[in-house]
Amino acid sequence: MSLLVVGSVALDSVETPTDAREDILGGSASFFALISSLITRARLVAVVGEDFPEEHVQTLAKRDVDLEGLQRAAGRTFRWKGRYLPDMVGRETLDTQLNVFETFRPALPESYKDTDYVFLANIDPSLQLLVLEQITAPKLVATDTMNFWIEGARDNLVKVLARTNLVMLNDEECRQLSGKHNLVDGAAAIRDMGPDAVVVKRGDAGAMLFDEQGIFWTPAFPVTSIVDPTGAGDTFAGGFMSYLDHTDDADPANLRRAMVYGSTVASFCVEDFSLDRLRTLSRDEVLGRCQKFADLVRFDDVTLKD
Amino acid sequence: MSLLVVGSVALDSVETPTDAREDILGGSASFFALISSLITRARLVAVVGEDFPEEHVQTLAKRDVDLEGLQRAAGRTFRWKGRYLPDMVGRETLDTQLNVFETFRPALPESYKDTDYVFLANIDPSLQLLVLEQITAPKLVATDTMNFWIEGARDNLVKVLARTNLVMLNDEECRQLSGKHNLVDGAAAIRDMGPDAVVVKRGDAGAMLFDEQGIFWTPAFPVTSIVDPTGAGDTFAGGFMSYLDHTDDADPANLRRAMVYGSTVASFCVEDFSLDRLRTLSRDEVLGRCQKFADLVRFDDVTLKD
Repeated sequence: MSLLVVGSVALDSVETPTDAREDILGGSASFFALISSLITRARLVAVVGEDFPEEHVQTLAKRDVDLEGLQRAAGRTFRWKGRYLPDMVGRETLDTQLNVFETFRPALPESYKDTDYVFLANIDPSLQLLVLEQITAPKLVATDTMNFWIEGARDNLVKVLARTNLVMLNDEECRQLSGKHNLVDGAAAIRDMGPDAVVVKRGDAGAMLFDEQGIFWTPAFPVTSIVDPTGAGDTFAGGFMSYLDHTDDADPANLRRAMVYGSTVASFCVEDFSLDRLRTLSRDEVLGRCQKFADLVRFDDVTLKD
Repeated sequence: MSLLVVGSVALDSVETPTDAREDILGGSASFFALISSLITRARLVAVVGEDFPEEHVQTLAKRDVDLEGLQRAAGRTFRWKGRYLPDMVGRETLDTQLNVFETFRPALPESYKDTDYVFLANIDPSLQLLVLEQITAPKLVATDTMNFWIEGARDNLVKVLARTNLVMLNDEECRQLSGKHNLVDGAAAIRDMGPDAVVVKRGDAGAMLFDEQGIFWTPAFPVTSIVDPTGAGDTFAGGFMSYLDHTDDADPANLRRAMVYGSTVASFCVEDFSLDRLRTLSRDEVLGRCQKFADLVRFDDVTLKD
C-alpha cells in the first residue's frame, strides 16, 4: 500500500484571542503527512522557498515522511496569516502570500507514480489534473477544494471530480459547488458529478459521509482545550486517508471507521499550535479517544410498550 | 406514570422563504403535549384568550391531551410572528404579543398535583417556581429557559435550577447561563447549579446530553424537506419527556434513548407547518426513523495493525 499527498507546506502566522505565533510550520500537506506517519508512510509533493527552516524539514523527516517530492525553489515560502474569532471557529485571513507556490508545478518522483491512495489537497484544479496524469493506477483518489476554485476554476474542478472517488469539502463549499442549501441534496448532486462518496466537514458539528450505504455522521469530539484550530481539516483528511491505506480497505464500512479515526486525530490537532500536538501523539492515545468516540454516540434500541 | 407540561399555547404567524401561514396553532405546550400523546397522556397547563379557535382545542383533544389545566381568559391569545432566513435555521421575530399570557398564573388542577414527570417550558422563572410549589413529589423535573430570563430573571432562574433534575437549552443559552464558551465547560458549570443533567439543543448540529455518564451526542436527523422549523425544540422536549414517562425510567441509558426519540419526532415536526405533521404521525413511523438514527451513527471498532 502507498499514500500520496499533493498540497502546501507553509509558514503560518496565527492569532487567537489569547495567544499568537509567527512563521510556524503549516500547510495542508504538512498536517496530512505528519499525522499519516503514525500508521503509514506518506509521500509528499509540495514546494518550499529558500527561507524554509531546516528544523521544519526535520519535523517531517523524523516521523519518516517521504520527502523525495518536496521541491525547493528560489524565493520565499508560501505564507498564510489569520486571526481566530473569540468562538475559535470563525476566522479571518489577514494575509496570503503565494510566493513559490505561484509557479508550483507538481512533478512526481518515479517512485511515487504507483501510489494506491492519492489525496489532492486544496490546490488549483489544473495542478490536481496534472497529478492525476502522473499516477498509474490509483485505488482511490480523494480531492479537497475551496470556494476560490469552485468560483474561479469550475471547469477544471469538474474534470477533477469526474476522476475522483471521494471528495472532501466543508458545508459552505458543498452548498456552493452543488447550488443546493440542504446538505443531503447537495451531496447527491455532487455524487452525480463523479465521486462515489462525499465527505462534508462541518467544524464543531462533526463530519458527514454520503455514499452508497446512505449517510454516516460522526460528531466532533468535544474538546475543552482548543488552542489553535488551524490544520484540523487537513489532519482529518490525513487520518482518514492513512487509515484507508493502513488497512488497504475502501469499503463502505471501513470508510466509516476512517471517518472516526480522522475526527479523532483532528481533535488532537487543535490542542496546540501548528503540528506540535501531532508530533508527540501516540497510537494508544488515538485508539483510546476512538473508544471515547464510540461511547459518545452509543445508545440502546429505542422500543415502545404496546 | 404521569406527565405535565406548563407553557404556552399560541397563535403563530410564520414566514418562510417560499410560504407563509397566519394564526396557526403554536406554543411550547401545544407541540409538547401533542407529540407526547403518541405514547402517553400529557397534562397541559396554559392559557388562551377568547379568540382561540375551537378547532385548535379539538386538535389537542382528539389526541387525548388532558386539557383540564387549559385556562381561558378574557382578552386575546398569545401571538408570535417570525420569519425564517433562507438557511431555514436562523430566524427573526417580527412581533410578540403576550396578551393573556401577561397575567398568566399557572394554577394546577388537583388531579395534576401528583405528576411524576414535569416539564417547565420556557416561561417566567417566577411562574416555574409557582408550579413546583404545587407538585407533591415529582420523579423528574425538566426546565427550559431562554436568553430573556437568563438576563432579566437570573435570581429566580437559579432557584428553579436548584430544584431541576434536567435542564434543556440551546448552545447560546448554555454559554450565556454559564459564562463559558465551550459547551463541555458550560454544561459542567450548569450542573454545579443543581441539575444532574444538561441537554444542549444545537439545531442542525443535533443535541448533546451531559450527565454522570459523560457526554452523549445525537446528530440531527438529516431532513431534506424542511417546511417550518417552528416548534422543533418543544417537540424534541415532548418526545424526550414522554419517552421517560412511557418507560418510567430516568436512568442514564434511558436518557440516551429519550434523546434519540426526541430528535426523531423533532425531525418530523419540521416537515410541515404548525402541528400538521405531528397530528398524523404514527408510532411505526417514529420507530422506523429511530432505526435510521442508529444506522446514521453506527461504526465498527477502529483497530490498527501492529
